[in-house]
Amino acid sequence: MISVNEYGLGVFEEMLDNSEELQVGISEFENGTTVIDAGVEEEGGFEAGLCVARICMADLADIRLTTFDLGKLVVPAVELSTDYPVLACMASQFAGWRVKVKKYFGMGSGPARALSLNPRELYDKIMYADEADEAVLVLESDALPDEEVTAKIAADCRVEPEDLYIVVVPTASVAGSVQISARGIETGIHKLESLDFDINTIKHGHGIIPISPVVGDDVKCMGSTNDCIIYCGRMYYAVDYGNRDGNEGLAELKEFVKSVPSLNSRDYGKPFYTTFKEAGFDFFKVDAGMFAPAEITVNELNSGKTFTSGRINPEVLLESFGVETV
Amino acid sequence: MISVNEYGLGVFEEMLDNSEELQVGISEFENGTTVIDAGVEEEGGFEAGLCVARICMADLADIRLTTFDLGKLVVPAVELSTDYPVLACMASQFAGWRVKVKKYFGMGSGPARALSLNPRELYDKIMYADEADEAVLVLESDALPDEEVTAKIAADCRVEPEDLYIVVVPTASVAGSVQISARGIETGIHKLESLDFDINTIKHGHGIIPISPVVGDDVKCMGSTNDCIIYCGRMYYAVDYGNRDGNEGLAELKEFVKSVPSLNSRDYGKPFYTTFKEAGFDFFKVDAGMFAPAEITVNELNSGKTFTSGRINPEVLLESFGVETV
Amino acid sequence: MISVNEYGLGVFEEMLDNSEELQVGISEFENGTTVIDAGVEEEGGFEAGLCVARICMADLADIRLTTFDLGKLVVPAVELSTDYPVLACMASQFAGWRVKVKKYFGMGSGPARALSLNPRELYDKIMYADEADEAVLVLESDALPDEEVTAKIAADCRVEPEDLYIVVVPTASVAGSVQISARGIETGIHKLESLDFDINTIKHGHGIIPISPVVGDDVKCMGSTNDCIIYCGRMYYAVDYGNRDGNEGLAELKEFVKSVPSLNSRDYGKPFYTTFKEAGFDFFKVDAGMFAPAEITVNELNSGKTFTSGRINPEVLLESFGVETV
Repeated sequence: MISVNEYGLGVFEEMLDNSEELQVGISEFENGTTVIDAGVEEEGGFEAGLCVARICMADLADIRLTTFDLGKLVVPAVELSTDYPVLACMASQFAGWRVKVKKYFGMGSGPARALSLNPRELYDKIMYADEADEAVLVLESDALPDEEVTAKIAADCRVEPEDLYIVVVPTASVAGSVQISARGIETGIHKLESLDFDINTIKHGHGIIPISPVVGDDVKCMGSTNDCIIYCGRMYYAVDYGNRDGNEGLAELKEFVKSVPSLNSRDYGKPFYTTFKEAGFDFFKVDAGMFAPAEITVNELNSGKTFTSGRINPEVLLESFGVETV
Repeated sequence: MISVNEYGLGVFEEMLDNSEELQVGISEFENGTTVIDAGVEEEGGFEAGLCVARICMADLADIRLTTFDLGKLVVPAVELSTDYPVLACMASQFAGWRVKVKKYFGMGSGPARALSLNPRELYDKIMYADEADEAVLVLESDALPDEEVTAKIAADCRVEPEDLYIVVVPTASVAGSVQISARGIETGIHKLESLDFDINTIKHGHGIIPISPVVGDDVKCMGSTNDCIIYCGRMYYAVDYGNRDGNEGLAELKEFVKSVPSLNSRDYGKPFYTTFKEAGFDFFKVDAGMFAPAEITVNELNSGKTFTSGRINPEVLLESFGVETV
Repeated sequence: MISVNEYGLGVFEEMLDNSEELQVGISEFENGTTVIDAGVEEEGGFEAGLCVARICMADLADIRLTTFDLGKLVVPAVELSTDYPVLACMASQFAGWRVKVKKYFGMGSGPARALSLNPRELYDKIMYADEADEAVLVLESDALPDEEVTAKIAADCRVEPEDLYIVVVPTASVAGSVQISARGIETGIHKLESLDFDINTIKHGHGIIPISPVVGDDVKCMGSTNDCIIYCGRMYYAVDYGNRDGNEGLAELKEFVKSVPSLNSRDYGKPFYTTFKEAGFDFFKVDAGMFAPAEITVNELNSGKTFTSGRINPEVLLESFGVETV
């Protein structure tokens, strides 16, 4: 059985070895925890973002920088493929751990979640738990954790603090933009899971997602980075589904595909930040169904059927980015 | 002189080392032959398909996954470049060996052909034969070979069975779709060869080809995977040709370029599977000229002239894929 | 501090190790200088061109081959990203050293410039000088240097001749086309620098640029390769600029962005070779402002503003390539 933490640690070590090229900072705490700063006080960048994305996905995806044509201009983009969508995206990448210790807050994602089991029902569903002695966590935060925070995280993962490895990346940073766009395949799987689709049937995934410029503070960047997936994320999945239920199964699958794209949401059509602001910055008033790719195509491997739904909307993304033509 | 089997073996060994990540199976027969299952009983996937493609081309090409825009949806695609088009495509990748032993059938391609010399006249034409002691073969088949089959293959390659390395990949599999799309540059060269073009003048190649979803059984997938090249394969070659014959040579080259694209075929315009079915599934009734890229561009390196011909046709490819918008 | 020559040497050694695959020649002179021929007498190719580009940029960029859609046809393209735009492009890649020894002429670029400090005012501006004991130089030239030339270069770099490593690549070659297209990010920075922009504020860069076919002799290829950047180069930069001067700084930045694209030049609109020919092949009569990307987008990291200017013009590029549809 693949250990997501072991795979993630391999990339973490690459980051340590190439810290100067990646423009990341390294601190070792007295309790032994190693923390990489990929954009809080250090510059970070595209390559650091790629490394963070690879850690998030337990190095079980081929993640590349590419270019996305928005019509009048191009922006950098993330293109990725994986043959382990459930393990890479759900067991590891999904940002399912709200790390809150006293005043410190960071959104936790990556391999360590498969030790702390956040959220546990997801791990039950995918029937996976890691047994590694070392934990690798990605924290999306604008601040570095202190020793107390790391001690708490280590305890939750049942590892020694010296066996804990953390990368911190702010939402409002180049590396942050990269690693969020790399969540395109995950976002589609998560949406399917929220619709009660059996995500264990998903065998392969591929996608392309533009990378947001840094548009302002963390909240604004949270908006624009998610808009990359919501308005221009184009995802493709291969699932092993149909032969369980014949035509009925296919009809069911078709409905799932239809329900995934972001355009099904009542909040579709404007930048996420605008929606969020109009909701008084109250997450509970925003439709969670928004968090979905713009376009999804699903190939069912037994029946040979392929369904597609949704469409990209570069206009809203350009509005979200606030691009000004001069 | 480059040994295609030595290069292919390097990738085969990578597959052995990463078998869990690639989701491939490994068997070692009593006679010592090693067989990798990249999709018969094992899941395989995009990455396994890339490895198979690299073995096919003797690792003499840079083969990458990318994305192809079909208008309303994107699909994954193969993008590749090579500075050894003749060696990679003709000496190795071309599926020129029909391996038939009793009831077993597989279409053989890859480095081992340069030992068994199938077909011999092609090797005479390109003046290449490998002298490696180890043979690496790719079998496109829905079944794994048995020991008797491998013994026959080894004998044809004049190597010991323990020096034979085989990867099996079904047409109807994700890895199968990937490795067939990776035949885009090869398909163009093969078409040129069938027109009596001197293929030894081809010095560099580049291309992009969508990857087919799995659309059904092996025959249906044979159709859709080839349609990727026929209807959306975009190829670019650099040839060293013109200075041999001056303007006359260029006029000749222009005619070759014009004759290559699939749209020259009488069977152009519908999915290959439809054509094949209408022909009673009799290959001899199908125009072999169909097997060609949709688009070809040729840069002649001495004269500096560049000719282009053909065009892509995403509509027919979507029909071939059977994509249903929901 | 990163040594650009140390980084470049790593790639040079890769070229030595893979010389057969790359189809490059190696000579070691009596004085100990090692010279790689990437297209003068040897074939070279796409992969050799990528290596040359990586040396030029001191291996501080992620440089990939991709595909560029020119409408009726695609051509290969270079796509690249860097988190060290100033070091990679200005300290190393910029072709700022005219190497002229007796009858030998080559345009020098790459890491060795950071030892010979050509031109010195640029190094003062970016506050960088390398202190490596080994020098790696790329010479764009249709001829290999002799021992006398290399001795002069070594002296200018204050290294021993045996510590000098040179790659020679002709303009009119496949590798030459690749390495010139890889100058897209650099061309934009250089244009900004010529406008008196503080280039040290540029923190990240990304771009995509088509690769020219070989269209004729060195002068003609100089035209078509530069046209790739001028008419279809699409660049993206992240700069740390705005908070120094508030809104005034942003207004200033906006003007810079507006002034960068090639369409600002009086000579815009026809293939560079045509302009050059009409100017009697006199460089001083050509507007230097032409040497700029077609499109530029700048994200200012503090204010979160993004400005874009320019547009691509595939029609002129096809004219420059002399592509004939047959």
